[in-house]
Amino acid sequence: MMTVSIVNVTSYTGSELLRLLAQHPHFEVISVTGRSTVGKRLDEVFPFLRAGVPTLEGRHPTIDPRLVITEEPAQTDLSFVCLPHAAAAEAVVKLLQKGTKVVDLSADFRLRDVATYEEWYKHTHPAPALLETAVYGLCEMYREQIPHTSLVANPGCHTTTAILGLSPAFAAGIVNPDVIIDSKTGISGGGRNPGPSYHFPEADEDVSAYGLSGHRHMPEIAQELVVAAQQGDHPLATELRITFVPHLMPMTRGILATCYADLKQDENGDLPTTAEVRALYENYYANEPFVHVVDQAPHTKWTYGSNHCFIYPIVDQRAKRLIIVSCLDNLVKGASGQAIQNANLLYGLPEITGLSSLGVHP
Amino acid sequence: MMTVSIVNVTSYTGSELLRLLAQHPHFEVISVTGRSTVGKRLDEVFPFLRAGVPTLEGRHPTIDPRLVITEEPAQTDLSFVCLPHAAAAEAVVKLLQKGTKVVDLSADFRLRDVATYEEWYKHTHPAPALLETAVYGLCEMYREQIPHTSLVANPGCHTTTAILGLSPAFAAGIVNPDVIIDSKTGISGGGRNPGPSYHFPEADEDVSAYGLSGHRHMPEIAQELVVAAQQGDHPLATELRITFVPHLMPMTRGILATCYADLKQDENGDLPTTAEVRALYENYYANEPFVHVVDQAPHTKWTYGSNHCFIYPIVDQRAKRLIIVSCLDNLVKGASGQAIQNANLLYGLPEITGLSSLGVHP
Amino acid sequence: MMTVSIVNVTSYTGSELLRLLAQHPHFEVISVTGRSTVGKRLDEVFPFLRAGVPTLEGRHPTIDPRLVITEEPAQTDLSFVCLPHAAAAEAVVKLLQKGTKVVDLSADFRLRDVATYEEWYKHTHPAPALLETAVYGLCEMYREQIPHTSLVANPGCHTTTAILGLSPAFAAGIVNPDVIIDSKTGISGGGRNPGPSYHFPEADEDVSAYGLSGHRHMPEIAQELVVAAQQGDHPLATELRITFVPHLMPMTRGILATCYADLKQDENGDLPTTAEVRALYENYYANEPFVHVVDQAPHTKWTYGSNHCFIYPIVDQRAKRLIIVSCLDNLVKGASGQAIQNANLLYGLPEITGLSSLGVHP
Amino acid sequence: MMTVSIVNVTSYTGSELLRLLAQHPHFEVISVTGRSTVGKRLDEVFPFLRAGVPTLEGRHPTIDPRLVITEEPAQTDLSFVCLPHAAAAEAVVKLLQKGTKVVDLSADFRLRDVATYEEWYKHTHPAPALLETAVYGLCEMYREQIPHTSLVANPGCHTTTAILGLSPAFAAGIVNPDVIIDSKTGISGGGRNPGPSYHFPEADEDVSAYGLSGHRHMPEIAQELVVAAQQGDHPLATELRITFVPHLMPMTRGILATCYADLKQDENGDLPTTAEVRALYENYYANEPFVHVVDQAPHTKWTYGSNHCFIYPIVDQRAKRLIIVSCLDNLVKGASGQAIQNANLLYGLPEITGLSSLGVHP
Repeated sequence: MMTVSIVNVTSYTGSELLRLLAQHPHFEVISVTGRSTVGKRLDEVFPFLRAGVPTLEGRHPTIDPRLVITEEPAQTDLSFVCLPHAAAAEAVVKLLQKGTKVVDLSADFRLRDVATYEEWYKHTHPAPALLETAVYGLCEMYREQIPHTSLVANPGCHTTTAILGLSPAFAAGIVNPDVIIDSKTGISGGGRNPGPSYHFPEADEDVSAYGLSGHRHMPEIAQELVVAAQQGDHPLATELRITFVPHLMPMTRGILATCYADLKQDENGDLPTTAEVRALYENYYANEPFVHVVDQAPHTKWTYGSNHCFIYPIVDQRAKRLIIVSCLDNLVKGASGQAIQNANLLYGLPEITGLSSLGVHP
Repeated sequence: MMTVSIVNVTSYTGSELLRLLAQHPHFEVISVTGRSTVGKRLDEVFPFLRAGVPTLEGRHPTIDPRLVITEEPAQTDLSFVCLPHAAAAEAVVKLLQKGTKVVDLSADFRLRDVATYEEWYKHTHPAPALLETAVYGLCEMYREQIPHTSLVANPGCHTTTAILGLSPAFAAGIVNPDVIIDSKTGISGGGRNPGPSYHFPEADEDVSAYGLSGHRHMPEIAQELVVAAQQGDHPLATELRITFVPHLMPMTRGILATCYADLKQDENGDLPTTAEVRALYENYYANEPFVHVVDQAPHTKWTYGSNHCFIYPIVDQRAKRLIIVSCLDNLVKGASGQAIQNANLLYGLPEITGLSSLGVHP
Repeated sequence: MMTVSIVNVTSYTGSELLRLLAQHPHFEVISVTGRSTVGKRLDEVFPFLRAGVPTLEGRHPTIDPRLVITEEPAQTDLSFVCLPHAAAAEAVVKLLQKGTKVVDLSADFRLRDVATYEEWYKHTHPAPALLETAVYGLCEMYREQIPHTSLVANPGCHTTTAILGLSPAFAAGIVNPDVIIDSKTGISGGGRNPGPSYHFPEADEDVSAYGLSGHRHMPEIAQELVVAAQQGDHPLATELRITFVPHLMPMTRGILATCYADLKQDENGDLPTTAEVRALYENYYANEPFVHVVDQAPHTKWTYGSNHCFIYPIVDQRAKRLIIVSCLDNLVKGASGQAIQNANLLYGLPEITGLSSLGVHP
Repeated sequence: MMTVSIVNVTSYTGSELLRLLAQHPHFEVISVTGRSTVGKRLDEVFPFLRAGVPTLEGRHPTIDPRLVITEEPAQTDLSFVCLPHAAAAEAVVKLLQKGTKVVDLSADFRLRDVATYEEWYKHTHPAPALLETAVYGLCEMYREQIPHTSLVANPGCHTTTAILGLSPAFAAGIVNPDVIIDSKTGISGGGRNPGPSYHFPEADEDVSAYGLSGHRHMPEIAQELVVAAQQGDHPLATELRITFVPHLMPMTRGILATCYADLKQDENGDLPTTAEVRALYENYYANEPFVHVVDQAPHTKWTYGSNHCFIYPIVDQRAKRLIIVSCLDNLVKGASGQAIQNANLLYGLPEITGLSSLGVHP
């Protein structure tokens, strides 16, 4: 049993970690921190926890709903950091110094290039030296490296959806570096703090685009598609040209990215068929427990509450484009579920440990 | 490991059994039946099952998403019957004859009085003799009897919510048999068949009452409140006078009953206080793993996907009434979760086996 | 053409007044006030107003989307006050002193008894003398008085729904003063300020009760049911015993009250039939342009964006109760539409002026 | 006063015509047809019509909610045809023969090329000769031609949104014929017939793409973008390469298209700025009553129930693309509102007649 802290547990990624870790046999949450809620018990902040966590067959419970929120985390083996960027990096530095392994759910260690970070996040990076040791926590791409680091930079939700959708095509070298990602997310992606955009009467029955002048998940996607192309021995000949537009949907959970990429033609001017591309995708994800290539348009609802991602590639022969629809639950595979998948890798556990629940449907 | 069949798996209660049983260590689903879907695989009917069911730590998987739907169930130890009433009774008779234990999710064996059944369901009961051996599957009331039957009549969703909310007050004899139950349910309670009332553009952003001329869950509630009063040694002196009105809410899951009962005054004309009533409720449910008395108005969302029920009693001193708000997930504690709780009792397993997940929040 | 100001236009009742007054031929909005938005144009605060207000057939436009929000209202013939209670009364006093007629959408002048006001609103009434001259703005009950006042106290949304549903029964003396009102409202009723209860991820897919220890609309309902009984020559013999519980529904607009009242039996112990009660209701509302008695359970969606109210009375013979389902749009007949109906009465205009649109459906 | 029939009034476009025509001073609906509802009154099929249509200031009412649905339309000046394709063409032929002008809301006369029609709709066109006389009813493009035809082919909802968004760029020749349209629609676009995809528990909290192997609105968009380019004296040098993917959103009304087009560079390799493109768009739509170019991302909710369209163009300098977000209400500007706008043109009325309402917000 490893001891675990959750820093800023009062975020949605924090409470989602609680929900998922309650099913985990090897991580025990012994410390949780917050900011305005210090001194309160978990089940005061999250009343659904008053149901308690029934413990089965003599198993040691891994979550205590009466745990009191503190300002600083206790010493633990592992910590999940759910703070906003900048604040996260400061907490991470302290935790690493105490010998704690960290899965950081913020954006602070995702971009390997300090200049890119500072361009997009508009402030000096608090701990640039750590960028070299941090591993990008997309398990499907960095499974080999993650066990050897003590700092995992957990990817963003739009990012995970888009990269999982596009990386097989880049690895196989079948598309030009000319990509449009139209991403649609549920509102929990905006976090737990109320605001006008998330006020029910405004957000209900409404669809809108946001971040049109540039969203911070874009450079993260670009960085990893370059890696995917390299990993597949099809390094990009020219610079990536990505347009990424996120949209807010009137629903709580779920994210769906529709990705459009220019297909390369072969020497005869022919394009791969949908069947060929699907075979290539199925092969790429053949051994993945959480990524599933399907032959019909997937629904975000298939993933509600689970760590699964569904991917549907289809060739638009007329327009010579590859369309890929990729979807997952933004709070699970797009955040806290992936964080646990990373933690499992950090400790040599099977990746699916604690993550085997099916989604809630309907 | 017990073998299990699910009869009419293509209903929402059927698919919810699949979801929950995938987490159950002792029940293996080896047979599923349907009607228009015979010959299809489970994951063709329910594409979210294409994620498969990851199996942990050498455990035997209890669900195979590639199981083919048949017309008749195979021989198993246990069967969950998810057919509509009348059709259910016929299937139950056959299963019992083959020595299979049955948890019937239909209404066919809930009412102990044949005449009442025939009055409300408008047809001759297909197997009246079984009414004597069937046990009403509200575990909190019939925990002692359930292990000794081979036929459990799983309660309805409105019924479970209302009875759990009202029975402590009836058992304690603090209310007159004068009750109004205003119940609000999510739309999955209407089943998986599309129809005008459940068509998204009609049901979205809409609230309406239904069943105003009499809903079949009413006699079921009446029957069990009489029992609760008897169990508590406060048998009713006069006939129950219940008004029950269900309402459709624009949401998928969740049911919340607001129950109003006239409080008895003591010899000094005094009413119990909210604190006294809450203490009484807490005591009544002290050892229940799934029923939780809380001190603030509960939200259906606290129960999303879980088997928990939250109950909040409060005294309206001005109007001399007891108000009880009770809520749960209509597909879990209101149907398939409770069915598994009953199955656990049938086989001497801890009631919480396979039901320990927290709800999905937000 | 009368000149109009809207005080605190940045509320939802304020913007709803703008939407409706844009269709009104006789009221021209020349002044709008706000608090944190002073200096901004209307269409900066409400971007949907950028569509402008197309003006037909040489009509003078009654709304200018580029109107600048000020701190104090300009001198006008009429003012709609959309401030919270207490603040409203202070604004009303000033407006009346300047000779402006006022429709006050706050609760400040609804209760005729100062002590009751101060008990429920927990502060000293800022202008108790005005309570005598204010007229309660439920047009269906006070149509004769409204033209003679200069201060109309526009009723609350729960209140309007419940009183319209119950007053025919009280006026006819067919029910005992023993009433339960279970009211369900859309979230716009909570106003335009974001907060945890209205945060989309919390409020979506959720139903909950609130105000269980006493909601301020209760005394308002009680006050008017007593009047309805008197108006119908069936004054109450005993004190009203009302329980009122409001609930929050996952939708933007719409309110539906399910009202339960004990029916009186005649000398033979008989109850009126549903047909008899419906005839009585139809007669009571025979000439009302906005209140419609129907013979099936009504849906809030029938009223979306319109000033209509649908009422469905049904007798529960078994439990000897009258059930009345009443619904309307909380922002129209429950607030701003009713305010315009009142303003029409103040100026001798047909009540339906500017209010003739059908609801948006689906 | 012109007489009007609505063929297949029981569709959502039919009922929306009723709602809008109730506000129209010059069109009187005297005949409505249906299929399974023949013999019923309008307010039996659409209970919200039981509110009646209050008539103001001596105006003649234009809708009678008690109108009986017939199988065949009566003789009228004008007919709105709301049938599915193929059935529509047959009805249109008969109506034209009787001298009735027709606004056809189906797809039957939108494509000018018979072969394209038959390729996409998979059947022989029932009346190919009429394709020459029909005018495509996008008022913003065909305002001059519509008054001279007797058959208007009302555009589709996705189509209207996309063409309004893209045509200024094509007319100005600033983009290459390389376009991706990611369109998101509310569920009412799927019509009034219940089905699994529109069943509330499936469609709620869900986002999915559909029509990925080719959607019939695509050739319609292509046809009109070619025209827009020609009208602007920038005819396309190469064939259009369009990818169009529609998505279903968990909401009733509203459609939002995010359009991506490759920007042309000038001789210096420079791109136009967002300000330049916006100025060009504002100029293009300067005199349009219903199309509004805005400087922030628009929300579908701004258009709820109104005939307005909001367009937001922005240049992605990094990727050298023009992004255009365009949104409207699929049942109004995307169908029935546009049909009335066309009817106004047919009779020389101001285009805004009967369409001046603001959207319902929130």
